Amino acid sequence: MIKKWTITTDSRDQFFEITDKIKVTVLEAGVESGIALVYCPHTTAGITINENADPDVKADMLRRLDELYPWEDPKDLHGEGNTAAHMKASTVGSSAKVIIHEGTPLLGTWQGVYFCEFDGPRNRTFYVKII
Amino acid sequence: MIKKWTITTDSRDQFFEITDKIKVTVLEAGVESGIALVYCPHTTAGITINENADPDVKADMLRRLDELYPWEDPKDLHGEGNTAAHMKASTVGSSAKVIIHEGTPLLGTWQGVYFCEFDGPRNRTFYVKII
Amino acid sequence: MIKKWTITTDSRDQFFEITDKIKVTVLEAGVESGIALVYCPHTTAGITINENADPDVKADMLRRLDELYPWEDPKDLHGEGNTAAHMKASTVGSSAKVIIHEGTPLLGTWQGVYFCEFDGPRNRTFYVKII
Repeated sequence: MIKKWTITTDSRDQFFEITDKIKVTVLEAGVESGIALVYCPHTTAGITINENADPDVKADMLRRLDELYPWEDPKDLHGEGNTAAHMKASTVGSSAKVIIHEGTPLLGTWQGVYFCEFDGPRNRTFYVKII
Repeated sequence: MIKKWTITTDSRDQFFEITDKIKVTVLEAGVESGIALVYCPHTTAGITINENADPDVKADMLRRLDELYPWEDPKDLHGEGNTAAHMKASTVGSSAKVIIHEGTPLLGTWQGVYFCEFDGPRNRTFYVKII
Repeated sequence: MIKKWTITTDSRDQFFEITDKIKVTVLEAGVESGIALVYCPHTTAGITINENADPDVKADMLRRLDELYPWEDPKDLHGEGNTAAHMKASTVGSSAKVIIHEGTPLLGTWQGVYFCEFDGPRNRTFYVKII
């Protein structure tokens, strides 16, 4: 079973929480035990699992990623000027895997699943594949 | 089949090798062919696969990660002061996947599987899900 | 089903595109729906999914990774002198997951799958496991 989701991000860099969408998909699939692969088909965005309690963590992480991969870099050759977004995408990765246990995603107490926007705002797509 | 493991880490930053625990789990599962998903349910720790021959590699990697993501950063907003650990967690990722082939994990000659502690020492948990 | 591929890389750092090899493997497997796990058994190389349209993106990314993880670092203890390659490997990760949908890999318009060489040139191996 595969489900395609569409979201609209709000800014250039954003951790857009999709935990509830994963839960809904797993529930719809009716699978007791397995894995949910959350997949981002874009090259300037990614998926990560991290803290969903204090929003300051997200703000700190986006700021630190931006310091690590500055948007403006005179050495970049790529004409679109978004090499930093490609770097961030490969750093967090294009997918995340969640264990399905007793019919529900097995996440840690503080874990949330995030669609990571690095070149927004845009309409974006992601897939949840249940196996 | 899913197995939950508990470990105790020794320092703030540590690559704690769990290769043997993965092997034991795969053996117990009695699966000839498949995938083992090694999953970390914490947000200040992760899982990576890297060299297990020379311990200097681990020391170098932890030092370089610390230089990249300094523990103290006056711009961080997060009150717990462990934003660096969250950064490291999303960089290495929350899970690793290992191929099971002929009843055993198919790892490269120099590969080991590591639980990456970034905010220890602590009691920690990880899961191995066999599919 | 598992397939082992062998490639020869051309330089120390290289994004070697393997998208076609993934497609061939999926076709050979004859699987309508599932997941392809692309796995790198080396510790100084990795797998990532990123843009395959403008080659400048690859050049920029390799240059930025090299700035982030300089090859020469007097603090490194590891005798082989390739700690930077190990860092890059854990940053991009040792595997990538691709959804198989209607008999073919479900990749985004601009996505390609890359074997990431960080300590070449060398003969290298990777696996594609279909589940």
